[in-house]
Amino acid sequence: MHFASDNGSGVPGQILDALARASDGHAPGYGAEPAMERVRDRLRELFEAPGAEVFLVATGTAANALAIASHCPPWGAVYCHPQAHVEEDECGAPEFYTGGAKLVLVDGPHTKMTPGALAQAITATGRAGVHNVQRGAVTLTNATEAGSVHSPAEVAALAGVARAHGLPVHMDGARFANALVAAGCSPAELTWKAGVDVLSFGGTKNGLLGVEAVILFDPARAWEFELRRKRGGHLFSKHRYLAAQMLAFLEQGRWLELARAANAAAARLAAGIAAVPGASLVHPVEANMVFASFPRAAHRRLQAAGAKYYFWPADPAPEGPDDEALTCRLVCSWCTRDDEVAGFLRHLAG
Amino acid sequence: MHFASDNGSGVPGQILDALARASDGHAPGYGAEPAMERVRDRLRELFEAPGAEVFLVATGTAANALAIASHCPPWGAVYCHPQAHVEEDECGAPEFYTGGAKLVLVDGPHTKMTPGALAQAITATGRAGVHNVQRGAVTLTNATEAGSVHSPAEVAALAGVARAHGLPVHMDGARFANALVAAGCSPAELTWKAGVDVLSFGGTKNGLLGVEAVILFDPARAWEFELRRKRGGHLFSKHRYLAAQMLAFLEQGRWLELARAANAAAARLAAGIAAVPGASLVHPVEANMVFASFPRAAHRRLQAAGAKYYFWPADPAPEGPDDEALTCRLVCSWCTRDDEVAGFLRHLAG
Amino acid sequence: MHFASDNGSGVPGQILDALARASDGHAPGYGAEPAMERVRDRLRELFEAPGAEVFLVATGTAANALAIASHCPPWGAVYCHPQAHVEEDECGAPEFYTGGAKLVLVDGPHTKMTPGALAQAITATGRAGVHNVQRGAVTLTNATEAGSVHSPAEVAALAGVARAHGLPVHMDGARFANALVAAGCSPAELTWKAGVDVLSFGGTKNGLLGVEAVILFDPARAWEFELRRKRGGHLFSKHRYLAAQMLAFLEQGRWLELARAANAAAARLAAGIAAVPGASLVHPVEANMVFASFPRAAHRRLQAAGAKYYFWPADPAPEGPDDEALTCRLVCSWCTRDDEVAGFLRHLAG
Amino acid sequence: MHFASDNGSGVPGQILDALARASDGHAPGYGAEPAMERVRDRLRELFEAPGAEVFLVATGTAANALAIASHCPPWGAVYCHPQAHVEEDECGAPEFYTGGAKLVLVDGPHTKMTPGALAQAITATGRAGVHNVQRGAVTLTNATEAGSVHSPAEVAALAGVARAHGLPVHMDGARFANALVAAGCSPAELTWKAGVDVLSFGGTKNGLLGVEAVILFDPARAWEFELRRKRGGHLFSKHRYLAAQMLAFLEQGRWLELARAANAAAARLAAGIAAVPGASLVHPVEANMVFASFPRAAHRRLQAAGAKYYFWPADPAPEGPDDEALTCRLVCSWCTRDDEVAGFLRHLAG
Repeated sequence: MHFASDNGSGVPGQILDALARASDGHAPGYGAEPAMERVRDRLRELFEAPGAEVFLVATGTAANALAIASHCPPWGAVYCHPQAHVEEDECGAPEFYTGGAKLVLVDGPHTKMTPGALAQAITATGRAGVHNVQRGAVTLTNATEAGSVHSPAEVAALAGVARAHGLPVHMDGARFANALVAAGCSPAELTWKAGVDVLSFGGTKNGLLGVEAVILFDPARAWEFELRRKRGGHLFSKHRYLAAQMLAFLEQGRWLELARAANAAAARLAAGIAAVPGASLVHPVEANMVFASFPRAAHRRLQAAGAKYYFWPADPAPEGPDDEALTCRLVCSWCTRDDEVAGFLRHLAG
Repeated sequence: MHFASDNGSGVPGQILDALARASDGHAPGYGAEPAMERVRDRLRELFEAPGAEVFLVATGTAANALAIASHCPPWGAVYCHPQAHVEEDECGAPEFYTGGAKLVLVDGPHTKMTPGALAQAITATGRAGVHNVQRGAVTLTNATEAGSVHSPAEVAALAGVARAHGLPVHMDGARFANALVAAGCSPAELTWKAGVDVLSFGGTKNGLLGVEAVILFDPARAWEFELRRKRGGHLFSKHRYLAAQMLAFLEQGRWLELARAANAAAARLAAGIAAVPGASLVHPVEANMVFASFPRAAHRRLQAAGAKYYFWPADPAPEGPDDEALTCRLVCSWCTRDDEVAGFLRHLAG
Repeated sequence: MHFASDNGSGVPGQILDALARASDGHAPGYGAEPAMERVRDRLRELFEAPGAEVFLVATGTAANALAIASHCPPWGAVYCHPQAHVEEDECGAPEFYTGGAKLVLVDGPHTKMTPGALAQAITATGRAGVHNVQRGAVTLTNATEAGSVHSPAEVAALAGVARAHGLPVHMDGARFANALVAAGCSPAELTWKAGVDVLSFGGTKNGLLGVEAVILFDPARAWEFELRRKRGGHLFSKHRYLAAQMLAFLEQGRWLELARAANAAAARLAAGIAAVPGASLVHPVEANMVFASFPRAAHRRLQAAGAKYYFWPADPAPEGPDDEALTCRLVCSWCTRDDEVAGFLRHLAG
Repeated sequence: MHFASDNGSGVPGQILDALARASDGHAPGYGAEPAMERVRDRLRELFEAPGAEVFLVATGTAANALAIASHCPPWGAVYCHPQAHVEEDECGAPEFYTGGAKLVLVDGPHTKMTPGALAQAITATGRAGVHNVQRGAVTLTNATEAGSVHSPAEVAALAGVARAHGLPVHMDGARFANALVAAGCSPAELTWKAGVDVLSFGGTKNGLLGVEAVILFDPARAWEFELRRKRGGHLFSKHRYLAAQMLAFLEQGRWLELARAANAAAARLAAGIAAVPGASLVHPVEANMVFASFPRAAHRRLQAAGAKYYFWPADPAPEGPDDEALTCRLVCSWCTRDDEVAGFLRHLAG
């Protein structure tokens, strides 16, 4: 019953096989290996974006921070949701990489900024001219940290606000595949066709050892991105091992298949929870994460049975009444098994 | 005949096997997995440094920049050789991570600073007080970019100068294993016993996919290092794949065996080159790299035969007299084959 | 009728005289002139802080940013009110000088953080360990941007929260003299006795050409401060002109006299406004600023009569109903004249 | 006998008078005061550069660091002489303001880079592509730290190298007026007509309390400069006092007159020294500084007589033989008196 994080899962055998195949013989490094060419071609094709530039890094924080820094000056405001990963979980990486930009928090339900709140925040920025930080960039997350998904129309609404003010749009897609299979649209529709300029295209949470692609739909800042990546220590010498992972991931729709499995497990889990008296869902379950609230007594049962998950947003006091409702986050992954879901629901029901 | 870089090599099968084993089941991330505990223990034991702190990152540039930034303030001088990797090959990563420290270049033969030149540079720093950058940290490379090796006594001489001025010492050990088997001493003797405070312990060039350990012999700055690593985007969620590589690397002396193979190949290559009339060695060959000079005609023969290597420090003009001597860098790795060496020497001899 | 800003005022003749006297002959620069020794002694005496270190800079933004950067690491959270000058009016200077720290906004009425909200914000910081920015420093403003004043007890309450978590406390005292004469206590009581570690002691808004002192009650970070000041380009070569201004300011209680004049003018203005039907005060008037709300028709009359002031927080739409209430900020200074106040009140009453 | 620094001098009475006049009444701040408009117009006229943008700051380090940061990315190389103020005397301010650019040292006699050495340094930069810092900007000093002057032709030769590689050119003109009167050309000829893009136009060393203008001949980066200035804490609220100084400085050729006086004093001093047996000039004396070498015994006599100056580059050992030649720097200023020069020469001759 492993629901702590999709990062806690391993990787499919095909990914390991691809690493072994990639390891054969000598290869140029630093992204000059032939496999990287294929990654680039494949992602351009998948995203219907022949002019896009593609770079690989090994962590989501690197992908986000480098993408944002390449699109926002040090004196820029970066608009994001208060619960966004860039704000909450990166120890200030965007501030570090941008040289001190300011994250401006824009609220909205289920960890999605509302277009109205975004417009208001942008309009309020820079009113006093040189005395203020300036309008910089917008970053949204899909799927969100709450397990909700921005539809193409929702992305377009936020990106439309950004573009009306001339601002670039970044999407943190650490769980992009989960969002995509939920939205049921094409990669292009969920990104550049909806106004996204640069995407952190996640692999790690969806079955890779540690690879994220950054896709610049407008290649104008590609060289700057490359320099920032190198300077940040994120250019791999044996880059072929990143490329090999990503290639195997994209092959024959594997990345979508993995995400579908994770989303389906979450859907089953959510449906089961909703059917338990006294338990309820905190956010709509649209991707691979379930936020649920149920009594402390049930949590005790689950943890005694070995279920792994986090309370959210933070651990409750160790002691408390049995009937107090406590919220937790349950993350499914490509390898969540039916029996884990069934077991969880059984212990929950008590 | 692959002599372009040790980064161009793949990884031994045992490393891949270790990845596959590590992939089984769920594991905590971010370095909290049990394998990281074993890595820490193993390195503490190998280095006879029970109090040392150990962190893993995926690139040598990250290891160096994070180590230096944790030991030098933004207004510090970082003393290094003009051909050091931190000065020449990291696109300013040390400047970025430190927040703008200044690399002060200290010369010496075969890419080793001399203690006298180091003392002079340190003494000259900060003479005008607040108007100057201040004395920060010393960084040396072992094995060096020229393929030479600092003996324990040479490390101690440089570190002694640093310590006499109260400065911490970093060693860039991207090729530490190659240096160690050449020096024929213990890991402790080549590092903390000789005055090194923090070591970038390289794995990538010596057979891993992409892992370097940073070993802080004095753990006082460990928490700062951790924060800088996270903030730099270098903390891996599926950290177990780094730990697994490093464990397999350290197992049964494998890391030393790999380095010995590379050094031995370089020694054979160097001996063969030295015996060819008209060819000569530019630096002493002490680790796994050979810098050799020989006529353009021989280079033409070698390249026509498919030999891969770099001219050094830069490509010569495409055309030129046959008898012009041109210098090249030849790097051997754990998987350099005897027939590659023999083939190279045969084509060189003509 | 000049109520736009205390920065719009000139300087008293005695300050100019002091500059002229200071200009005589040669003097060492960079703070080594004898006058700086006297400034240091005088401020130590005034603040009953014989061990304090004192530095001069020319702008409030420099004072704040350097003070904060000397007390907060790049990965630190800086707790401040959402309307604080450091958040709203410095174009990200604190982020720049700290190397990317994060300003965490803590609300409260009249631009004062509440101790409860501060405690909550601090407690919420760093819960996820290395993934989060860490607790850094607290900065409060006295007098505030809303013209309110923190009493010694209020400062102590906020500083007590900070100290309970081991955090240093900075006070932005661009209008410290205004706060002090309002609080009716000693400089020490309003600062270090209440838990303040470092103070931006403003001169510019209170009658100087451009000088602020930074007073480090704990001198441990004095050398770091000096280096940051130099590196930021804020160390004056002809430093004697800063020292001379500050000396003349402190002489015979002149700084308090100037602040008293400004506060008194604001009090008269506030009393007058409160007596006008349809007009009201938005914040308590405790220092030299009045935030008032009254109908657009009255604003039209005042502006036609040449009154200078800002709408707050932003200019209203140019057209609108006569009876719509609009808020403005009215700042008095050391040289606000009785007839300006009287004139304003006459036009307001209509 | 004050020859320690031109920063040790006071300011002419007319400058103080201008401050007093400027102090009358209220004025908009932050550069919006009418006097700044006149400064801009006057400098555009003097430099025959109607499109130039002009900003004032209070220190030379601020002027240089902001100018360079506005013209060089964080990953850029800044080419300068090893004895340049930006390299030696600013505690890393250029590195801080650029976000970690690298100063690349280009040698040449009398603190002037040679065009050949500059071309070589630029050509050597970035050879390994993304692994290296990139070509950024060139900065030269006029008059130099050695008291030599770049003629328009010399500026054009260096700027020509820069422009051939597409690089912007900054001139540190802390002593620009001294260079200009020495060169005997027009301001335009010594700057933009010779290829300079941005000038730090010094006032402080030549008679102001603390004002430098930054002149951007190409205004494309003016807004970025303004934001960097504000963010660096260098935008003055009571900006009128900067503008007033600069206006009085430019009035009726006063700035040139002041510089001529300083240069003339240096010329007299140099001629006198050259005539003393055993004394010699180390650099050509072209502006207001004299570098001279003479026996320790003469230094003892001078210091006993109260002469103020610095040994260069550093203080000698306190004891030593009487006939050992020691080098010193002697700086004349707008207010160096004939009797100071005469006195110095008398004690030198012994």
